[in-house]
Amino acid sequence: MEWKPDRNSHLSLHVQIVDWMTTHIDRGEWTVGTKLPPQRKLAELLGVNRSTIIEVLDELKAEGLIETKMGGGTFVSNNSWNMLLNKSQPNWHKHIQASSHKPNYHTIQLINEYEQDSSMIRLGTGELSPDLLPTKLLEKSLQSISLHARDIGYSEPKGSKRLRVILSDYLKKRGIHTSSESILIVSGALQALQLISVGLLEQQSIVFQEHPSYLNSVHPFQSAGMQMVSVGWNERLAETLKAARGKKQSLFYTVPTLHNPTGSSLTLSEREQLLKICAELKIPIIEDDVYHELLFGESLPAMKSLDQTGQVLYVGSVSKSLSPGLRIGWVVAPEPVINRLADIKMQTDYGSSAFSQEIVAHWLSTGLYEKHIVSLRQQLKARALLTESILERDFSRIATWEKPQGGFYIWLRFNNPVVNKALFLKLIKQNVLVNPGYIYDPRDLHHIRLSYAYATLEELKEGLHILLANI
Amino acid sequence: MEWKPDRNSHLSLHVQIVDWMTTHIDRGEWTVGTKLPPQRKLAELLGVNRSTIIEVLDELKAEGLIETKMGGGTFVSNNSWNMLLNKSQPNWHKHIQASSHKPNYHTIQLINEYEQDSSMIRLGTGELSPDLLPTKLLEKSLQSISLHARDIGYSEPKGSKRLRVILSDYLKKRGIHTSSESILIVSGALQALQLISVGLLEQQSIVFQEHPSYLNSVHPFQSAGMQMVSVGWNERLAETLKAARGKKQSLFYTVPTLHNPTGSSLTLSEREQLLKICAELKIPIIEDDVYHELLFGESLPAMKSLDQTGQVLYVGSVSKSLSPGLRIGWVVAPEPVINRLADIKMQTDYGSSAFSQEIVAHWLSTGLYEKHIVSLRQQLKARALLTESILERDFSRIATWEKPQGGFYIWLRFNNPVVNKALFLKLIKQNVLVNPGYIYDPRDLHHIRLSYAYATLEELKEGLHILLANI
Repeated sequence: MEWKPDRNSHLSLHVQIVDWMTTHIDRGEWTVGTKLPPQRKLAELLGVNRSTIIEVLDELKAEGLIETKMGGGTFVSNNSWNMLLNKSQPNWHKHIQASSHKPNYHTIQLINEYEQDSSMIRLGTGELSPDLLPTKLLEKSLQSISLHARDIGYSEPKGSKRLRVILSDYLKKRGIHTSSESILIVSGALQALQLISVGLLEQQSIVFQEHPSYLNSVHPFQSAGMQMVSVGWNERLAETLKAARGKKQSLFYTVPTLHNPTGSSLTLSEREQLLKICAELKIPIIEDDVYHELLFGESLPAMKSLDQTGQVLYVGSVSKSLSPGLRIGWVVAPEPVINRLADIKMQTDYGSSAFSQEIVAHWLSTGLYEKHIVSLRQQLKARALLTESILERDFSRIATWEKPQGGFYIWLRFNNPVVNKALFLKLIKQNVLVNPGYIYDPRDLHHIRLSYAYATLEELKEGLHILLANI
Repeated sequence: MEWKPDRNSHLSLHVQIVDWMTTHIDRGEWTVGTKLPPQRKLAELLGVNRSTIIEVLDELKAEGLIETKMGGGTFVSNNSWNMLLNKSQPNWHKHIQASSHKPNYHTIQLINEYEQDSSMIRLGTGELSPDLLPTKLLEKSLQSISLHARDIGYSEPKGSKRLRVILSDYLKKRGIHTSSESILIVSGALQALQLISVGLLEQQSIVFQEHPSYLNSVHPFQSAGMQMVSVGWNERLAETLKAARGKKQSLFYTVPTLHNPTGSSLTLSEREQLLKICAELKIPIIEDDVYHELLFGESLPAMKSLDQTGQVLYVGSVSKSLSPGLRIGWVVAPEPVINRLADIKMQTDYGSSAFSQEIVAHWLSTGLYEKHIVSLRQQLKARALLTESILERDFSRIATWEKPQGGFYIWLRFNNPVVNKALFLKLIKQNVLVNPGYIYDPRDLHHIRLSYAYATLEELKEGLHILLANI
């Protein structure tokens, strides 16, 4: 809310606020069932006394525009439309309920919401802290961008040719040899999953995922009607896949390097084994490789670099390493697959931001990117060390964890099953936001995905202290 | 193809090309069924004699890697995998066939493809010509962008708060009074339709569209399983809608100002009538208003500005007026609807480019945008006049059209039903690309959507000349 009543107006604060609220209901911006903020909050937002708010709400209630429900909360009433000139409006609530896309889980909606609140200590956020982003360098680099009219029109279906050529060169360092025609630029890795979901899978296809999995916290496949099957790493993997896939198409989603949420990596022999099993069963693999540049030690080969048969769809991005705000990622796959995904991308959003693509091309081609990554890794490592030292001092009796090998996360396991929604909500009340394990595996009440990448060091200390006090 | 054989290599051209092609097939970049370019084209691309290409292809054929099909064309053969170390790969073709998203129509795929060919004269492109884009001013404005670390992280679900506040102010000039909380930033208007499709409609919902309609050339609703119903403007509109909607949810998509493809606008009374009919039937309306700033004359009120009940979902964009490469548009709708669409957007691509949002905020808030629009309108008007003069001189005996009131298009109607796919293909052979009417209405063989916005004036003259010669 940007609006506040005008204290210099000839109208009373009361009249101004009644008018403002009525207008919102009138215009249909607050539809039937919209919940109003609590009185205290409204008073604060509008900069008036709570008594003024109480008077206003009483008046609107008397007019039948709003109503108080048992159990708390004031809502735009069912009759508000009849009251206001007998208008009709579509039943938006029914529309939303019946539509095909799943809403985010409530816990994730709350995370998205509270992440906007700057007073929260964010212990779970999978994002670089503002002070780890090369903001000033990015700003400065804008001055080096030269635009050509052809580049800022509608994009080629696969994205900027220049960026794709630069990427095909950059990917060689990851052992991936591909041409620019086998690369699609996307608006981040999540969009890649979305396009694959609607462009390469029939309804009810099986999507295999590791256990636990980032995919449980987003819905690119679920919303398109796919069946998710979680599989663990054991000697019976091949049989499990064979038995579960049935007659439907299937696909294996993996984060082999710095897995989200566990932070672990597949060994070389595990990578080879997974490739072999999936090749035999003709199950394509999505390799989500967005964290590999953040490894503290030596890198293992990308699965795509070992792929002899074109069965791996490789997904990369600059969101974890440069800036999520760029919204730039890429897919590497056989050319007919890329053509298909590009066709759907054109039908979805007509391509990604040309400006973001120019910026990424500039950073990759000038070496700015690699230089930045080196320093970023060092800073993340320092954050990891500090976090580990707090954990060792305060958590070692009640929890276990693996030493982080890179990236953002420590998959903190509490000995007792204490990580439930009640804990999540209790922590929010104390201004601490965590990513509970159950959003990655619904049955998991033991884990928290701890991120040392986002909060400041002070916040990490304080947040972990509050967490400890609530266990 | 960026690769060319190296004439200084100790390997012969023949050996290098065989190796290069085998590697592409080997890596799975050219999968089974991939069509190779014609011999002549290959020779040109690789900078070698055609005889070299013929030898290479013969060798690969002998090895069983490629095969020639009756009716023309050389393809990666079915056996290529067995030949190459007996590898297996997923059957990508089957994957693509079975998946849920519809491919673009073949004509539109060809348009997308040939638009990348700079030798084509583009008489149909719905895009500003490179010389109408304020490229240098955009480049210069990058220097005025100051970035804040919080802005280049993951976005708020609804998009940049700053841009939304600026937009809520800007939209007042369009008669639309709304708060920043009722605005969602999207990656262009097409994405808005996509989000509405999966976020507000149940499967098999009815989407009403005008006749002809831009929606027939894209698939945001069709791919999500909606039924499209084209309706015309007549006194029986209410009954038609009532009869057609059945028990399913429905929605009315309209471009009331400078309609795509016809260029016409609804009168004020038509706007009011449509609002009234849809209000009574509780059919929400999507108002696609991306062209209104390009009106040569006086603007009519947006339907959203007349909307008393929150039934209109208003869609705007800078793609037609500033730069499509920015990929920035917006939706204005009741707050619970915006919250829902924002939730799905977060699951789709985690928000639009922060950099593009900063640029649009800068252009809107400094007045650069409005200044640019004034000059753009004048240039479009001059182009429209020239095009009309050519039409009057050469086409008036065989076709009719309305004088353009703004925007990009003249909906040129040929007296005879001559605009079929054969004409479309014949024109491509002569380097002229048109948007035939049948992509907006499958039964229409009379119209071409002529755009005076893209081609240069010379190209317009030449292209229309070639068009005329083929009718």
